[in-house]
Amino acid sequence: MKTKVLVFGGSGYSGLELLRILAGHPHIELLGASSNRWSDAPLSRYCPAWSGDETFVSHDELFERVEPGSLAFLATHATVSHDLAPKIIAQSAQVIDVSGAFRLASLDDVSKWYGFEHQHEALLTNAVYGLPELYANDYSNSPVSLIANPGCYPTACILSLAPLFAHQLVRTDLPVHVDGKSGVTGAGRKLADNLLYNEVAETFRPYRMTKHQHTPEMERFLTKSAKSDISVSFTPHLIPVRRGLLTSSYVQAKEGLTQTQVDKAYAEFYKDQPFVRFLTDDSPHPAAVVQTNFCDVTCKVDPRTGTVSAFGAIDNLVKGAAGQAVQNMNLIKGFSETLGLLP
Amino acid sequence: MKTKVLVFGGSGYSGLELLRILAGHPHIELLGASSNRWSDAPLSRYCPAWSGDETFVSHDELFERVEPGSLAFLATHATVSHDLAPKIIAQSAQVIDVSGAFRLASLDDVSKWYGFEHQHEALLTNAVYGLPELYANDYSNSPVSLIANPGCYPTACILSLAPLFAHQLVRTDLPVHVDGKSGVTGAGRKLADNLLYNEVAETFRPYRMTKHQHTPEMERFLTKSAKSDISVSFTPHLIPVRRGLLTSSYVQAKEGLTQTQVDKAYAEFYKDQPFVRFLTDDSPHPAAVVQTNFCDVTCKVDPRTGTVSAFGAIDNLVKGAAGQAVQNMNLIKGFSETLGLLP
Amino acid sequence: MKTKVLVFGGSGYSGLELLRILAGHPHIELLGASSNRWSDAPLSRYCPAWSGDETFVSHDELFERVEPGSLAFLATHATVSHDLAPKIIAQSAQVIDVSGAFRLASLDDVSKWYGFEHQHEALLTNAVYGLPELYANDYSNSPVSLIANPGCYPTACILSLAPLFAHQLVRTDLPVHVDGKSGVTGAGRKLADNLLYNEVAETFRPYRMTKHQHTPEMERFLTKSAKSDISVSFTPHLIPVRRGLLTSSYVQAKEGLTQTQVDKAYAEFYKDQPFVRFLTDDSPHPAAVVQTNFCDVTCKVDPRTGTVSAFGAIDNLVKGAAGQAVQNMNLIKGFSETLGLLP
Amino acid sequence: MKTKVLVFGGSGYSGLELLRILAGHPHIELLGASSNRWSDAPLSRYCPAWSGDETFVSHDELFERVEPGSLAFLATHATVSHDLAPKIIAQSAQVIDVSGAFRLASLDDVSKWYGFEHQHEALLTNAVYGLPELYANDYSNSPVSLIANPGCYPTACILSLAPLFAHQLVRTDLPVHVDGKSGVTGAGRKLADNLLYNEVAETFRPYRMTKHQHTPEMERFLTKSAKSDISVSFTPHLIPVRRGLLTSSYVQAKEGLTQTQVDKAYAEFYKDQPFVRFLTDDSPHPAAVVQTNFCDVTCKVDPRTGTVSAFGAIDNLVKGAAGQAVQNMNLIKGFSETLGLLP
Repeated sequence: MKTKVLVFGGSGYSGLELLRILAGHPHIELLGASSNRWSDAPLSRYCPAWSGDETFVSHDELFERVEPGSLAFLATHATVSHDLAPKIIAQSAQVIDVSGAFRLASLDDVSKWYGFEHQHEALLTNAVYGLPELYANDYSNSPVSLIANPGCYPTACILSLAPLFAHQLVRTDLPVHVDGKSGVTGAGRKLADNLLYNEVAETFRPYRMTKHQHTPEMERFLTKSAKSDISVSFTPHLIPVRRGLLTSSYVQAKEGLTQTQVDKAYAEFYKDQPFVRFLTDDSPHPAAVVQTNFCDVTCKVDPRTGTVSAFGAIDNLVKGAAGQAVQNMNLIKGFSETLGLLP
Repeated sequence: MKTKVLVFGGSGYSGLELLRILAGHPHIELLGASSNRWSDAPLSRYCPAWSGDETFVSHDELFERVEPGSLAFLATHATVSHDLAPKIIAQSAQVIDVSGAFRLASLDDVSKWYGFEHQHEALLTNAVYGLPELYANDYSNSPVSLIANPGCYPTACILSLAPLFAHQLVRTDLPVHVDGKSGVTGAGRKLADNLLYNEVAETFRPYRMTKHQHTPEMERFLTKSAKSDISVSFTPHLIPVRRGLLTSSYVQAKEGLTQTQVDKAYAEFYKDQPFVRFLTDDSPHPAAVVQTNFCDVTCKVDPRTGTVSAFGAIDNLVKGAAGQAVQNMNLIKGFSETLGLLP
Repeated sequence: MKTKVLVFGGSGYSGLELLRILAGHPHIELLGASSNRWSDAPLSRYCPAWSGDETFVSHDELFERVEPGSLAFLATHATVSHDLAPKIIAQSAQVIDVSGAFRLASLDDVSKWYGFEHQHEALLTNAVYGLPELYANDYSNSPVSLIANPGCYPTACILSLAPLFAHQLVRTDLPVHVDGKSGVTGAGRKLADNLLYNEVAETFRPYRMTKHQHTPEMERFLTKSAKSDISVSFTPHLIPVRRGLLTSSYVQAKEGLTQTQVDKAYAEFYKDQPFVRFLTDDSPHPAAVVQTNFCDVTCKVDPRTGTVSAFGAIDNLVKGAAGQAVQNMNLIKGFSETLGLLP
Repeated sequence: MKTKVLVFGGSGYSGLELLRILAGHPHIELLGASSNRWSDAPLSRYCPAWSGDETFVSHDELFERVEPGSLAFLATHATVSHDLAPKIIAQSAQVIDVSGAFRLASLDDVSKWYGFEHQHEALLTNAVYGLPELYANDYSNSPVSLIANPGCYPTACILSLAPLFAHQLVRTDLPVHVDGKSGVTGAGRKLADNLLYNEVAETFRPYRMTKHQHTPEMERFLTKSAKSDISVSFTPHLIPVRRGLLTSSYVQAKEGLTQTQVDKAYAEFYKDQPFVRFLTDDSPHPAAVVQTNFCDVTCKVDPRTGTVSAFGAIDNLVKGAAGQAVQNMNLIKGFSETLGLLP
């Protein structure tokens, strides 16, 4: 039997990517997609993979279609997801939220980093963090009500660093220096001066230094891997590409760490993961992963300085959003993890 | 009286930029420009600012034109500069070398990082490192025979970090994590697969991890600023722009460091420097400095993590090569430091 | 039973695209792929869709694997295709040639436009021109020995103009002015100065004015549609994108032609074609067709000047090369025309 | 004595370019610059060449500063220029209008192509069309009150075609097919979906087919050159570059026209023009003219088809707007034509 799904916020970049992926997924039935921007426009105009007459509807109209047992993807702003999720769950449906509304550990953290007052502490506490490579065992084949799908930068950052912390190969008394680089779709479909072609092309720049809302998410889950408090200094940069994201993370090795140990740790850590490719003779870069759900990872030890540099590349809209959301759906619904995500 | 100048390697990106800048310099007379690639082609074809019949000649022919008292810019590969410099100096001419042949502290370092055996230890030892903002007092108005013009990454990295180390605001017991980002002209005019449009556009990637030859140059001069050994872990990234370079450097603050202290240190350090702009309410980025000799710098303290992030943006071909070389010529010839470099 | 296929020249842009598409085709079995450049390298390194141990081999080695009844795709240079095709056909195998070796009407035309002396007049004369939307009736389900797969510019140009000429809506006594615009992959994987990122980005330029080898191909088949001699003045331009091609073609209307007549002619002409989308309220542009086998077409009549402007957009590597080749294979093998080419 | 100038609309792309050029002009004194967007912001923030405390003011405030004998540049929307010009002229000041408000021949044409009702027929009739290469003799050293500065597409189109029509080398009974290609700054600084990086990069598209307001401007002045009615079919395309414009124009030769005749006509026509470079062995392209006031031109005759293809490349913001405006100021004020426009 097919899983009935709904896509709230189907006209943003992540929402459209979800629709594109779901169109090729053999085990789903689409109950509808909502868009405040394109309400009433046919899906097929923006997402040719949906060839029928189905149109976008408003969030309210889509909510009316929620059924017990259905699954709602929220590709909406954090504040919208915050309001929608509890209402959908109350209908006995499951929610996979692509926004950051349910990723942090406390109401205070949401207030501090996202700038709004979170009203649903129980949901926040019980939300499952949907990073399958680390946590799938906790939630696959289970009736979780709410999955907080990871942010794009945290996905690349955590996947590229987790083996180091899990195997206790690096120092935990220093902050991790995470230098993030992302294409423009990472900012969502926004009409902003700084996203115009003329402003983006032929330059690149740091933004939101010390203040980016993905910082506490990285800290929370690296801490979980390290079983020790990890602090993260994160600086994102806007790069003139459309899609694609790379995190370059710098930590200090524990005394005597060798490249061989690192290579072994990563190979072991990811040996059963279909979507993480550990590269030993090439560098991760966006073009190799764009339009796929892969995260390419590499890690270099510099014995001269003791620095360990870990790199993770993803498509911010796929493994960093829509693809990972479908991967999570596959896991909780008992489908093959890669269904609809590999050719 | 005009300074007579020669440009060896005038057909590379840095060489052409030198010719462009020199064309607008009121106090120079060009004795000629050499190019192995375009020998016999008119300068005007590639550098419209030179409107006459002057053609590129071979390195050998240009060497014949060296006069006592003249000044040779070497925009040649390190190994070519290594061979040319002593011969030119022997003619009682001065040399400003844009390559890396004379920037490091020892023959061993050259061998290790540049991969060739340096034969001129005395020249290497006596070469002046031409970073005017830090060292102009040592060499302006002086008859130095050889200036080693700084590399592009070190220029941005050192200028963005020097106030921190000179004022002893940050820890020196940890390596500096330098994440460099450069456009394609940083690689020189090379016919290489990885510089084709199809390979560069819409992606970006780390390269030469732990091995880039600019690393020891950064360490040498940051150490000089800090008066304490500094080690640098440097990771350059290729970004899809033509010109422009940014270094994002991450260090740990000494206990209690505030943004106010940092701002004051930078403002003071650069208050008399015409080419360094310390930005407090914007981020450095290439488009703001391209085709200028400016280095835009900013520095942020994160009290939460104790990380200090310093950013420096330059045009890799101007402040990172040709512009800085002309700035150095101005200084040793007693011209105004900004002559030919500001509108 | 699966069709056994071979890909000669599998490491060029078109060859790799062929391998990518064939990897998802349910009715083929790959006998191998050749590459002079990457001989012995695993296919999977360059085309991740092929996950096994299969390596590229030399053209000679691949030729040894040709079987009676198999089908060889030639994604090789025209001169290589010219030599290979008769040898493969002699083995009772079929050939789909992606090069221009067999597209023109006479030995003289090949000599004039391609610059080499063609030795196989009978093959040239008997080759089927593989533009399915116009000629599939002539060759589908038939044992043709050699299909000349159309060039990228002619595909977009002919598909966007054919309804005008077939319905005799425009003047044929004047040359068609075809302004072509293509991304860099149109030039193939060549290590050439003018394809470097620094030369291509932020500019665009006409090239091969009056001399491009696709000109006689356009003339030959537009003439066939018009049943009257058509001459073409073709000017290609290089545009800073990786993939994608647009032809903007300008002709003069016959007296009294209206937009309504044009819209009707196009809608009728392409009503059963799965890969041509006639757009009436949008403009064709590459991003809408990249990585698909679609050709988007539109046509505007300007009653003020009598000019009819026809536009066709394709992915130069798919509908302009590899995708169309697979479409042709589907047709001659009796598969569904869209097999492996639509999601 | 210096010419006192004012720049209305100084914060658009053309306005800022004007300020940049004027900052290096030795014979002007700036009375001020207006901006509705950035009113009260310092000029130096957006145009570093102006280093003082001068701020943008509102159009009304700037109007208060108009003096008899001063010269106002209008880099405002056509409707704003339409209202401002007569008021400024009434103050005995001169106006150079960079908008399209005064370029057409009749009130009806303005209404039809620009969509507003023009109220100042006398001004429209008496405005001088400021294309110096064709008309400088008519207005240099003269007290013209209003110069209509040419549009960007017409500048490239007319300069590349004028010798053909003036020398009667081509047929005038057929429309000229003008295929224009422009970077994004041609659209002005607009916050529009279709100018976002994600929409512009890696694609290109025709726009405003048959309706672009530069069409009647081309027709008017080509007609003047030809001394015979010329009609123009113009199709602009948006190309993913920031600055730079190329027109590719296609006409039919008169019987027997040779390349030699064409080359001679162009060389003769432009022999005394400092800003038009007629290229015989290269193609015009934006990168060669960006940030200069040059228009690069070439013209190819195809004896096979009788088509003459003329190409003109400019920087749309310099020769296509601000640079040409300064060239016009130089001419009417009796300065050297190239003052402030050549290094």
